[in-house]
Amino acid sequence: MTNLNELCLHFLQDIYYAERQILKALPKMAKASQSDQLKQALMHHREETEHHIERLQQVFEHMGKRARAQTCEAIQGILEEGEQVIGEFEAGPVRDAGIIANAQAVEHYEMARYGSLIAWTKAAGLTDAVKLLEETLAEEKKADGLLNQIASGDVNKQAAMAKAA
Amino acid sequence: MTNLNELCLHFLQDIYYAERQILKALPKMAKASQSDQLKQALMHHREETEHHIERLQQVFEHMGKRARAQTCEAIQGILEEGEQVIGEFEAGPVRDAGIIANAQAVEHYEMARYGSLIAWTKAAGLTDAVKLLEETLAEEKKADGLLNQIASGDVNKQAAMAKAA
Repeated sequence: MTNLNELCLHFLQDIYYAERQILKALPKMAKASQSDQLKQALMHHREETEHHIERLQQVFEHMGKRARAQTCEAIQGILEEGEQVIGEFEAGPVRDAGIIANAQAVEHYEMARYGSLIAWTKAAGLTDAVKLLEETLAEEKKADGLLNQIASGDVNKQAAMAKAA
Repeated sequence: MTNLNELCLHFLQDIYYAERQILKALPKMAKASQSDQLKQALMHHREETEHHIERLQQVFEHMGKRARAQTCEAIQGILEEGEQVIGEFEAGPVRDAGIIANAQAVEHYEMARYGSLIAWTKAAGLTDAVKLLEETLAEEKKADGLLNQIASGDVNKQAAMAKAA
């Protein structure tokens, strides 16, 4: 076990925790959304997140370690901000715009973490792990792109016309 | 003041807080780094961050509001994780790899936030604000790219050869 493997393991435990929190948060975000397209996108990503968790378990296995989660303060903070926005804005396009923004903050956090893990597993020659992590990264990027489309399709235009309560 | 402007303001106050925390964190991250290239990149981004703060003050002005920060739990969590890694790994390429990863998590958080703010200020027709936010987003993306280069240049290779203490 090299020192880089220890760093990998630290971040694997962090993102493993994060993915499990995201799995719980996505249905709440979908429930708080008004746009059907947004609801669907969030629930579809919830399904993908189940696969992300399974892939992480496989990566732990490839590293000869038991899958273990370690509290990830970053995702806690990001999800907490998401709940604040839902609490502050009533259901409608403005809240939807806020939900999209917070879902994208989640995606970006994951992109950063998977990007680092891919670079390190590559450097460490853990080819099977690289492949699994790359599959998940591609899905995170796609989810982020879809959220952009939903925002620029209708949500932001409707939000710009919404008058303050 | 429309409801979308309120959402913008909420996120402006969030990123204004985040940028000021990042300004304080970057010199600590540079000090904990071993690679000169990484130290320089972090300190250069510290200078850029000063401009990001000034630009945010101008965006508040364009919206007819006083610049105000609101505690951003996400950046607190991300920076806290960065400090943990510095505490856990002694100075050298593995710690440098961890510092790069956490700096990239910071950049990705900012990219997500500025991306949303740009979409909303565009939808609200706040052209001057859009321009300022786009300048900052371009610098965040460039900083992230430079960190990738530093990681894939030497740091990760050296980290992969480092034996556990």
